[in-house]
Amino acid sequence: MAGNKAVIYQGPGQVSVESVDYPKLVLEPGPGVPALNADRQCPHGVILKVVSTNICGSDQHMVRGRTTAPVGLILGHEITGEVIEKGRDVEYVNVGDLVSVPFNVACGRCRNCKEGKTGICLNVNTQPGGAYGYVDMGGWRGGQAEYVMIPYADWNVLRFPDKDEAMARIRDLTMLSDIFPTGYHGCVTAGVTTGSTVYIAGAGPVGLAAATSAFLLGASTVIVGDVNKDRLEQARSFGCETIDVSDGEPKDQLAQILGTPEVDCGVDCVGFEAHGHGSDAGNEAPATVLNSLMEATRAGGALGVPGLYVTGDPGAKTEEAKVGSLSIRLGLGWAKSHSFTTGQCPVMRYHRHLMMAILSGRTNIARNVNATVISLDEAPQGYTDFDHGMAKKFVLDPHGLVRS
Amino acid sequence: MAGNKAVIYQGPGQVSVESVDYPKLVLEPGPGVPALNADRQCPHGVILKVVSTNICGSDQHMVRGRTTAPVGLILGHEITGEVIEKGRDVEYVNVGDLVSVPFNVACGRCRNCKEGKTGICLNVNTQPGGAYGYVDMGGWRGGQAEYVMIPYADWNVLRFPDKDEAMARIRDLTMLSDIFPTGYHGCVTAGVTTGSTVYIAGAGPVGLAAATSAFLLGASTVIVGDVNKDRLEQARSFGCETIDVSDGEPKDQLAQILGTPEVDCGVDCVGFEAHGHGSDAGNEAPATVLNSLMEATRAGGALGVPGLYVTGDPGAKTEEAKVGSLSIRLGLGWAKSHSFTTGQCPVMRYHRHLMMAILSGRTNIARNVNATVISLDEAPQGYTDFDHGMAKKFVLDPHGLVRS
Amino acid sequence: MAGNKAVIYQGPGQVSVESVDYPKLVLEPGPGVPALNADRQCPHGVILKVVSTNICGSDQHMVRGRTTAPVGLILGHEITGEVIEKGRDVEYVNVGDLVSVPFNVACGRCRNCKEGKTGICLNVNTQPGGAYGYVDMGGWRGGQAEYVMIPYADWNVLRFPDKDEAMARIRDLTMLSDIFPTGYHGCVTAGVTTGSTVYIAGAGPVGLAAATSAFLLGASTVIVGDVNKDRLEQARSFGCETIDVSDGEPKDQLAQILGTPEVDCGVDCVGFEAHGHGSDAGNEAPATVLNSLMEATRAGGALGVPGLYVTGDPGAKTEEAKVGSLSIRLGLGWAKSHSFTTGQCPVMRYHRHLMMAILSGRTNIARNVNATVISLDEAPQGYTDFDHGMAKKFVLDPHGLVRS
Amino acid sequence: MAGNKAVIYQGPGQVSVESVDYPKLVLEPGPGVPALNADRQCPHGVILKVVSTNICGSDQHMVRGRTTAPVGLILGHEITGEVIEKGRDVEYVNVGDLVSVPFNVACGRCRNCKEGKTGICLNVNTQPGGAYGYVDMGGWRGGQAEYVMIPYADWNVLRFPDKDEAMARIRDLTMLSDIFPTGYHGCVTAGVTTGSTVYIAGAGPVGLAAATSAFLLGASTVIVGDVNKDRLEQARSFGCETIDVSDGEPKDQLAQILGTPEVDCGVDCVGFEAHGHGSDAGNEAPATVLNSLMEATRAGGALGVPGLYVTGDPGAKTEEAKVGSLSIRLGLGWAKSHSFTTGQCPVMRYHRHLMMAILSGRTNIARNVNATVISLDEAPQGYTDFDHGMAKKFVLDPHGLVRS
Repeated sequence: MAGNKAVIYQGPGQVSVESVDYPKLVLEPGPGVPALNADRQCPHGVILKVVSTNICGSDQHMVRGRTTAPVGLILGHEITGEVIEKGRDVEYVNVGDLVSVPFNVACGRCRNCKEGKTGICLNVNTQPGGAYGYVDMGGWRGGQAEYVMIPYADWNVLRFPDKDEAMARIRDLTMLSDIFPTGYHGCVTAGVTTGSTVYIAGAGPVGLAAATSAFLLGASTVIVGDVNKDRLEQARSFGCETIDVSDGEPKDQLAQILGTPEVDCGVDCVGFEAHGHGSDAGNEAPATVLNSLMEATRAGGALGVPGLYVTGDPGAKTEEAKVGSLSIRLGLGWAKSHSFTTGQCPVMRYHRHLMMAILSGRTNIARNVNATVISLDEAPQGYTDFDHGMAKKFVLDPHGLVRS
Repeated sequence: MAGNKAVIYQGPGQVSVESVDYPKLVLEPGPGVPALNADRQCPHGVILKVVSTNICGSDQHMVRGRTTAPVGLILGHEITGEVIEKGRDVEYVNVGDLVSVPFNVACGRCRNCKEGKTGICLNVNTQPGGAYGYVDMGGWRGGQAEYVMIPYADWNVLRFPDKDEAMARIRDLTMLSDIFPTGYHGCVTAGVTTGSTVYIAGAGPVGLAAATSAFLLGASTVIVGDVNKDRLEQARSFGCETIDVSDGEPKDQLAQILGTPEVDCGVDCVGFEAHGHGSDAGNEAPATVLNSLMEATRAGGALGVPGLYVTGDPGAKTEEAKVGSLSIRLGLGWAKSHSFTTGQCPVMRYHRHLMMAILSGRTNIARNVNATVISLDEAPQGYTDFDHGMAKKFVLDPHGLVRS
Repeated sequence: MAGNKAVIYQGPGQVSVESVDYPKLVLEPGPGVPALNADRQCPHGVILKVVSTNICGSDQHMVRGRTTAPVGLILGHEITGEVIEKGRDVEYVNVGDLVSVPFNVACGRCRNCKEGKTGICLNVNTQPGGAYGYVDMGGWRGGQAEYVMIPYADWNVLRFPDKDEAMARIRDLTMLSDIFPTGYHGCVTAGVTTGSTVYIAGAGPVGLAAATSAFLLGASTVIVGDVNKDRLEQARSFGCETIDVSDGEPKDQLAQILGTPEVDCGVDCVGFEAHGHGSDAGNEAPATVLNSLMEATRAGGALGVPGLYVTGDPGAKTEEAKVGSLSIRLGLGWAKSHSFTTGQCPVMRYHRHLMMAILSGRTNIARNVNATVISLDEAPQGYTDFDHGMAKKFVLDPHGLVRS
Repeated sequence: MAGNKAVIYQGPGQVSVESVDYPKLVLEPGPGVPALNADRQCPHGVILKVVSTNICGSDQHMVRGRTTAPVGLILGHEITGEVIEKGRDVEYVNVGDLVSVPFNVACGRCRNCKEGKTGICLNVNTQPGGAYGYVDMGGWRGGQAEYVMIPYADWNVLRFPDKDEAMARIRDLTMLSDIFPTGYHGCVTAGVTTGSTVYIAGAGPVGLAAATSAFLLGASTVIVGDVNKDRLEQARSFGCETIDVSDGEPKDQLAQILGTPEVDCGVDCVGFEAHGHGSDAGNEAPATVLNSLMEATRAGGALGVPGLYVTGDPGAKTEEAKVGSLSIRLGLGWAKSHSFTTGQCPVMRYHRHLMMAILSGRTNIARNVNATVISLDEAPQGYTDFDHGMAKKFVLDPHGLVRS
């Protein structure tokens, strides 16, 4: 039995790589594990040797101390790996399979799973929706580690058809666990289709994944807004137009690009930690993105909101924002007959389709998000660099399999 | 040439019935008519002898002085009538036809109309969306009158197949111009289908029309919330469960009715003039309904928002509400993966279907909303009674054709 | 350990009730069990005490000798029962639960199941799609028995929320396993919605369930065609219009009923054992129904085809029909831009919705299909009566629980 | 007033270019004009100076004498041009506009048009659906001419935003009138989305347009089948895999390409003039394509059928085929739960989206279909070459504007 190293949250601004127990087919008690889930048996689970596991912007919310994540939490919900052990009730996944794991933990047996709403599974947490290595998401151990247990494996994992072919594209395929489907979901729910004009708020990895998805869905013009010049440069590198929102509301710049100040589709890839636009760019302004998307999206358009909004934000600047209440210009959206789709992406709805697009070479998600492979031991530096706004998507490579 | 009497807005709290010009196939200049539309020729229009025209809750926003509606505006956007004259460009509507008119004025020639989004037509107003007799909606004359002009008649009107049959059900058919499709749209966009549990905020005519629609769509349990006991009684009269929100948030009462505190689908039939719940029931609280719907709707559910939200509300209590900005607990909706659909109902998408349901006797919308026929001269009293919360839907009968 | 009586196919025209083994959590070898499935372990299964199990029209295809069903096959795919034993892998179904079982056997773990296409599960048979007690459907033992094993129970079964309430409506709820969802699927795929006019070919139980569904979906006029006068009378008993197709093509009679010879939506509840219309009514004519539906459905309408068409029919009259090839007037459908949806109903997509409609008293499926409860021992007589065209849906009651 | 030259059908195998009357805003009587439409006034129409007009495979059906097209018919339904005159009732199209014309003539005022089903407009023909220059399609004059009249111009035409930009891409934009939307519709109705595997039967211009559309929709692998080696070579030129069906059923070759004998989506771009596969490749076999698509498409997949099937084919080999009745293996499709969508493409649903894709340079439809510009006078040779299977899409250039 091997040991197991993992990335651990150590308090605001602190992560470290530590030795932890090798996983078992059980959800073991620990920091952040609700009583309901402690010692939950998982004969339906598999143990993965982690091939790649990415640092996500939503991990940063925890590491910045903007949540109630407990010290000692094993981080990581973007997991790709090889099956090295399977529970007695696993039928269709086999030892040796190389698989992608949706960040949503889902049972495959509740009403929501049966309806394809795997982002809000009713059986894996004390409230709808579970995830690996995340506060309030059921206590499932994170996958920024050498080994991790995946429950309900027959339901959850996506098997790559050919291992060699998959390893050749592993930098792309590692994005199937979260950001590629999440960005794609944002675009789909914003109504992106052939010929659409699309404005994507945020040029972080999810925003860049949304831009990649918009092109894959046939968008004519994809415009990405951010304040981070490096990230905007990254967006331009694969054909996006960009808007520096520190120069003000996107409307005017949209008009210059498109000849009209509105797009067909708006996607919010920022969420609640938004900053103001223009002269207000240095300040937190959690409703900024939604309000500017309503302004920038044409009447009859739709808004996809994959960016995270929370029910409680202890670190917020106002009492209202602390309970997740934002001052939204709903009248503006109403006048334009907008629709809004929020929530965690149900990864399973899309990951097979996107895998096929990757394997056929029709998309270059790794290049577009600037996938950068580092070792597990380098994770703390990766967190720091990412928090400083570096235009990279860090992929941890616990066993050196990606870099080889 | 006949004369023409009409209901005129005379300032906050005041309407009167006055003689106005008989309509022509032109949008004549007048109070609230934007320069763009003044003297617009309408050879594609018809003149209707108005058979019935209803007072709407959204008329009340103007009459209460909560908008910038100009004195002198002819009111009325819920219009049913007989064609007595047609323009040279009208091909498929004939003199003698009895027709229902969607409250949305639409051209049938712009991108949005071609996509079926007739609530946000691009050609009939200075901004997307037009309506009859309504502030900022293009200056089209209202139909609470003896005669009215309807533009783009081939596109807009719905012809009843048989006049005698239609007159026998005219109290029901008169609801096709607005509230029945509007309530139905709220339910459809909230995902109501066979077996759904539905919570409808508001027991005014649109709320009761939504409840009627929910049953027509196959809902298992339809629950209506309001503070007005007469209106709740009206809802119970056709099989709804009810919640008096002056007793507090709907959650607890939902649990008593359903055995669970959440419904599948939530419909907001109140809009921006909402009041608080529970001890806060006497005060305006424009975000109350949306926030309580997010609480009351299950994860994975959807919210239909046919209730009107505005971009500006000079009479609001707070600076934020004056510009239509509401404090919304978006984090709550996001955690539940809610979707939201807002905006004017595109009546044309539904009116033919609902007409067929009425003519086959499968729904009793007039009974459910307590349709009450009064003369045109009684309109001022009707406005007053409706404003006082009377559980009636007032139908004006300018020519005595409905009562006969 | 109890014994177990079951209905057995004994060759063309012959069924008998025999003692068979009490079920185990394994698919035991036997008549019609493919090698792939023999001895398949089912720790994910439950044993049901069968409360009700219905005779289906598709059982008749086998009993008439129109298939290659082997002698000794235990019949029955419409199953409702109480859980009396559960496998080790079952988490969310409990002993004592009263449940409805979709006739489709599905794994809940393959691509098709994840996409909600449970009628063509890839893992339960040698070809897509499995069922209980049916030829070429994987060899899963039928449920016209005292006890039956249901695999993948967490995925497959629908638990009734309250047992007493459920037993009070058991004659209705027993239709959730097949004919109610099947008829509903036919209507949904034919585009039935509020106000639709619908023509349903076939007044057997599936046709009557489709008619019931059409009303539930809001249809304005529901017209059922058949040659069996008793079944047409049954259709009229709950508000359908009817057409006796032994009098000729439905077109003329449709025109008399509707004032137009075409409906919005056509549903084929007959399938391949169709007979001709008019003077050809006594002869088999397997393409008759589809061809007349294309004629009777308006341009832009859709056809739902839940009626069974087969890949091989050894008893057919022509060489082409023997290999399932029918002479279809596709040019007619093409000119009208028809769409066609075929295949087994994916019951899971609808059964929860329909259960809610039954439990709230909004539909009376048992009355509409003339549910007639008989004992297990009376099954052979039930088969005979049903084959003779009796306008009844026979519900077997192995333990006398329904009749008590 | 200019003269007008046009391409005229002169009997089987014969077309010529003749002088005809300059168009008026009226549907003038002539060959193939039904009495209903003769002298129909079109004040809602425009006169176009034709910039480009393409020869279509469906024109070939007429020219080969496989229809009842009358001698003297002006051919041509793929029309792009500049507005040089407008009727009094045209509001939003202006003289000087460069526009694409959908091949479907549609009124914009009937139930089907309002539902977006412009391929089966109820007001422009004696049966649902109209087109320019086509037998039984209402008698609207064809556009293979210097000038042509387009009715209901506000509804029908798509204005290019910038004329210079449009002329620079005119070889691509000319495909918006028919084959690009038609191929795209085939793919959309076959369910093509990100990552799909797609089999397209037929490598003529519609098949190649479908393949182009499949890539635009994100397909992973696009496979085109035909017997014409030049056309297959053309398909390979832009990334398609190909199957020569003279070597037999596509199944085996699919397995070699994909590792599995079935695709996700099947598109029939051949229609009723299909030939057999394998050793039967020289013979007409009108059901071949549909039957092989059912075999080649996976369970749960869908079939788009843009290829034309007719209600009568006087030149067919069998009595059944003469009335449009084909021997279809429906049982096979039913076992796989296939759905089928047939009919004329409603061009308006897609042309704006595809225009945006062209103008942004995201697709190269002209290159992919091998657009070949010839003069109007060369049309007879173009018909001959196309009939001989030349892998070109001929674009007529009546005024030399495209070649300049």
